Amino acid sequence: MATREKNKLTCRPRIRVVAGDQIALGPGKVDLLEAIDRWGSISKAARESGLSYRRAWTLVDTMNKSFKSALVESSAGGKKGGGAHLTPLGEKLAATYRAMESKAETAMKPDWKTIQRSLKPSE
Amino acid sequence: MATREKNKLTCRPRIRVVAGDQIALGPGKVDLLEAIDRWGSISKAARESGLSYRRAWTLVDTMNKSFKSALVESSAGGKKGGGAHLTPLGEKLAATYRAMESKAETAMKPDWKTIQRSLKPSE
Repeated sequence: MATREKNKLTCRPRIRVVAGDQIALGPGKVDLLEAIDRWGSISKAARESGLSYRRAWTLVDTMNKSFKSALVESSAGGKKGGGAHLTPLGEKLAATYRAMESKAETAMKPDWKTIQRSLKPSE
Repeated sequence: MATREKNKLTCRPRIRVVAGDQIALGPGKVDLLEAIDRWGSISKAARESGLSYRRAWTLVDTMNKSFKSALVESSAGGKKGGGAHLTPLGEKLAATYRAMESKAETAMKPDWKTIQRSLKPSE
């Protein structure tokens, strides 16, 4: 997770798709999907996201089991170990989640401005 | 926080108003404001929200210090100890936050339906 900047004012929706007692998709999981897409590897994506490999693998496993088909697939390993890539469903869901986030932010804007006007100016 | 129901599918934006390194307003703080409004007391509101009095007081203090004026005011204590009530700003911000949340949920609905169709049906 990124360090919060001092004096920064933000208002972000952290959207969680909750299925039963699992979070099928949330901000951390979508960040991880995007990192896997960039790096083609769960371990490199984990490193970039500041997660242990085990934690990243658990998040991927939860996503894969929550949806009708897998979001991330591992490629066969060569000498350097296998890679990983998003399936078409994984790509679609990451994009849909971001679109949903951005529409929510747009819808929030007027009320957020109202709240912002009441915040104490930062020192 | 409420217990998650098994087999429940939800998609909720948890909106955080972040000012510097503080969360000025978020889901837990707004629940607390509403409980104070209902009970007229921080300790009763804390009990209902499953928070310690100290924790509730800290949340109120953070809110009061984050905005230009207080959101919660304590009333003078009588024999039974003092009560607490929302100021007009507290009432306005709690309502604005809920309106913002509800607009975000409406904006999310079509994408949420797309995501929902890909979720595995719960056992």
